[in-house]
Amino acid sequence: MAENKVQPKVFIKSDIIILIAAALAIIFAGLAYYLKLNSVLAFLTSAFAVALLASLVGRSVEQLGDRFGPGATGVLQSGLGNLPELFISIFALKAGLVAVVKAALVGSILSNLLLVLGLSFFVGGLKHGTQKLGSDRARTIVILMLLSVMALALPSVAHWIHTPAAPHEKSFSLIVSIVLLLLFLLYLPASLKRGKIGINSDKNIASEPRWPIWLAVGLLTIASLLAAFVSDWFVTALQPSMKALNISDAFAGLVIVAIAGNAIENVVGIQLAAKNQSEYAFSVILNSPLQIALLLAPLLVIISQVFGLSTLTLVFSPMLVTSLFVAILLAAFISFDGESNWLEGAALIAIYIIIATAFWWG
Amino acid sequence: MAENKVQPKVFIKSDIIILIAAALAIIFAGLAYYLKLNSVLAFLTSAFAVALLASLVGRSVEQLGDRFGPGATGVLQSGLGNLPELFISIFALKAGLVAVVKAALVGSILSNLLLVLGLSFFVGGLKHGTQKLGSDRARTIVILMLLSVMALALPSVAHWIHTPAAPHEKSFSLIVSIVLLLLFLLYLPASLKRGKIGINSDKNIASEPRWPIWLAVGLLTIASLLAAFVSDWFVTALQPSMKALNISDAFAGLVIVAIAGNAIENVVGIQLAAKNQSEYAFSVILNSPLQIALLLAPLLVIISQVFGLSTLTLVFSPMLVTSLFVAILLAAFISFDGESNWLEGAALIAIYIIIATAFWWG
Amino acid sequence: MAENKVQPKVFIKSDIIILIAAALAIIFAGLAYYLKLNSVLAFLTSAFAVALLASLVGRSVEQLGDRFGPGATGVLQSGLGNLPELFISIFALKAGLVAVVKAALVGSILSNLLLVLGLSFFVGGLKHGTQKLGSDRARTIVILMLLSVMALALPSVAHWIHTPAAPHEKSFSLIVSIVLLLLFLLYLPASLKRGKIGINSDKNIASEPRWPIWLAVGLLTIASLLAAFVSDWFVTALQPSMKALNISDAFAGLVIVAIAGNAIENVVGIQLAAKNQSEYAFSVILNSPLQIALLLAPLLVIISQVFGLSTLTLVFSPMLVTSLFVAILLAAFISFDGESNWLEGAALIAIYIIIATAFWWG
Repeated sequence: MAENKVQPKVFIKSDIIILIAAALAIIFAGLAYYLKLNSVLAFLTSAFAVALLASLVGRSVEQLGDRFGPGATGVLQSGLGNLPELFISIFALKAGLVAVVKAALVGSILSNLLLVLGLSFFVGGLKHGTQKLGSDRARTIVILMLLSVMALALPSVAHWIHTPAAPHEKSFSLIVSIVLLLLFLLYLPASLKRGKIGINSDKNIASEPRWPIWLAVGLLTIASLLAAFVSDWFVTALQPSMKALNISDAFAGLVIVAIAGNAIENVVGIQLAAKNQSEYAFSVILNSPLQIALLLAPLLVIISQVFGLSTLTLVFSPMLVTSLFVAILLAAFISFDGESNWLEGAALIAIYIIIATAFWWG
Repeated sequence: MAENKVQPKVFIKSDIIILIAAALAIIFAGLAYYLKLNSVLAFLTSAFAVALLASLVGRSVEQLGDRFGPGATGVLQSGLGNLPELFISIFALKAGLVAVVKAALVGSILSNLLLVLGLSFFVGGLKHGTQKLGSDRARTIVILMLLSVMALALPSVAHWIHTPAAPHEKSFSLIVSIVLLLLFLLYLPASLKRGKIGINSDKNIASEPRWPIWLAVGLLTIASLLAAFVSDWFVTALQPSMKALNISDAFAGLVIVAIAGNAIENVVGIQLAAKNQSEYAFSVILNSPLQIALLLAPLLVIISQVFGLSTLTLVFSPMLVTSLFVAILLAAFISFDGESNWLEGAALIAIYIIIATAFWWG
Repeated sequence: MAENKVQPKVFIKSDIIILIAAALAIIFAGLAYYLKLNSVLAFLTSAFAVALLASLVGRSVEQLGDRFGPGATGVLQSGLGNLPELFISIFALKAGLVAVVKAALVGSILSNLLLVLGLSFFVGGLKHGTQKLGSDRARTIVILMLLSVMALALPSVAHWIHTPAAPHEKSFSLIVSIVLLLLFLLYLPASLKRGKIGINSDKNIASEPRWPIWLAVGLLTIASLLAAFVSDWFVTALQPSMKALNISDAFAGLVIVAIAGNAIENVVGIQLAAKNQSEYAFSVILNSPLQIALLLAPLLVIISQVFGLSTLTLVFSPMLVTSLFVAILLAAFISFDGESNWLEGAALIAIYIIIATAFWWG
């Protein structure tokens, strides 16, 4: 974190605050982990540290992207933006917490599609009235989301109703994962070409100081490595602290891990909507669950089978699939509407609360 | 009903006919109830009387609204327009007919979304060709309908598949009800501001004579009180007459109670479509099921738990939820289409017939 | 097939190739059938012959339609275009292969909605970029498809969850079939009036030689009769060859029979998209599954009950209904989008592959 002092001019204020906060959070989380302090404290500090490191990864990628153009930024972000979530999931699979990982994957999608989208519509709508959503790009993302939710649902349905495919759960999940990854590869150039789909945007960076390349690469490497460590602490603290707080595994995965893992992107999306950049906000918010469905989930399925972790399949519980389906259908109709208002935002938040309630009882 | 003679000029012809018909229907229904006449006769007369009283409540509210502006009218109608349905449901819950109440709630939504919307598209389309639907307002209503159907479905799914939330059916339903009521409160000012969402419209009243305020308030009070009485008779006659006619409870609730309870609004909606006021018709027809889902159903859940009636939860049978879901999805796509034609109307009526058939066998 | 030599000028090159290929395929298939040759060979040649005969039926109908106007062509095509599929299904029902018929009906709808639509979007999109879809007409077809899928689903849901309607499976399916057929009759004049909904189009024929009427009628009669024979051979070879290839009944019906039965129409649709006639392609491709859902399936239900074949009901397995539902929902959102691109095409193909995989394991 020494770069902070060497090249102070390249950082804007918010960067410095995040760097300091991240350093403090990591120190506290490390102490809590190694000294075996109170598990709730360990959980909270490591969750906070993961969120801040995710934000640093995002900033470094932005700075690199500024150099290589928006296309490369998109590729980098697709690959690196979900790194912390990937680390958390791998450690959780190693610890045998398959149900938590499944709930967290679905929860990340739900929190983006319902809570974050709802908050951005609500805040944006109250401040600026009815807001336009970029039609073409948004619709393509929504259709890909719809497709991937359905692709995730099919192995689950096959399992529930014991079709002849049910005993082949692992192979079926693997095939679905490969198809989804192929689709992601096809989607990648389209998203790069269109430029704006990535989280990065030239407008945001233009007026900011530029980091030297060694700083961006260095910070990216360090933040990613630290994210891997802290993710381990986070997963270790998760179960005892949830037990201490009397929170069910499903709720922990669906709500707490999901919100912690996406905290920064979520804040960005809502801020953009508040600034009346509704099209851009919509794109940022929807792009995150799309990457989870098309990239992260398939990748975890393949990794878990290849590296012999607790096997992750795409068989989710009926309640998770129902929730996903409800979320994507609502989001689809709202985005096909082409406009958002605060009432639609409130509706999305309402259904998120109802779904979270459904998972509250352990 | 003495006002009829005192101030004859304030009533238009249709009012006088409804007043006389209502008086006659009430007398017959009362006789059938107290003299324990044939239950089918008692059922038919009381159903007729409820429908006519519902219409009188509607007219009184319109007249009051004329005085207080369209905003207040909307509030009044939201609160009072569903009074007869509320009375019927409360008496039915008191009589332990929980399944009938559930079927009637779903049936009211279905008959509006499929049968009445279908008839209005069919009649309007045959008379005037392709008709435009008011896009923005209609879409907001459709999205709120979609949301509320999904909110009603989640406790049902939790119950069917025995999630950990299933034993907490009552609390879960209560939380969902509170969330839906809050959403209704948020929706209320929006619907008032836009003015046209309510059933009332200035155009309709402008040319009509205005009732003195004491007459409107008096008629409203009397009609509401009478509606409470007649609802009791209706519920009492319901079961024996259904048994006499060999009609299943589910079919009685879903089709017969639902159509009787919404008869007048339904006729109004279809008439508007026939007059080529398709946007207004669409708004009137969709507003009614929205109030049932966002206001009436949650209110009944809370009332049943607070006042110790037979407990109403939001756990519906899979067939009811499937039917609801089919209905709202079709209605959503048809309304997002932005236009209606007679063939879409026929399609909606066709699916209503198929759903009603599914509940025919007892 | 002697007409080939008598009036060579009336045929365009592709007709002659199809005639010769069909003659050869029929001869081989007949030999394989009567000499009890290898079942896989018999299956392949008869599948090929059925596809070519279907194409000849289509051409004859086009030529007749040229004489009687686009309206009559539509009627003829609705009635005759699905003849080979009707024959195959009847022979399969006679042979007791109810599961294969059900899978083939669903598979025909799926292959059109997902595979063929996907290929046409993919090819058209790669060649011509974003393509417009005819909004009004396409949306009406999509809404009717959605409705018919839901109508087919209701008897299935009633069966799965053992509602009181479940034991009345046959009557319920019969009523649904009659309602769907009535809707088809209502849809017929609308589709004729609009002219372009049918597979035929004046543009395509204008520049081609016209067949004498006796030739068109004669070829239609002969091709239809031969189609009936060859369908029998096809069904006879189906089971042993599937066993020899170790392919499950469900996969055979869903994928192989479905693609063989719709081969020609499929090629036409994709060719049109490649020629940038995307609106027309969309209409051709969607019209085929609509006829299966509104005409062929209901007709087969009625025929099976009237003629005492193995009874076909509209109770499908949950996996088939889920697949149908997924397909129509994706197709609906994509067509309401109003535009198509190659990525949406890839998404449709991806979900088709996933669904086919789900049925691969026997």
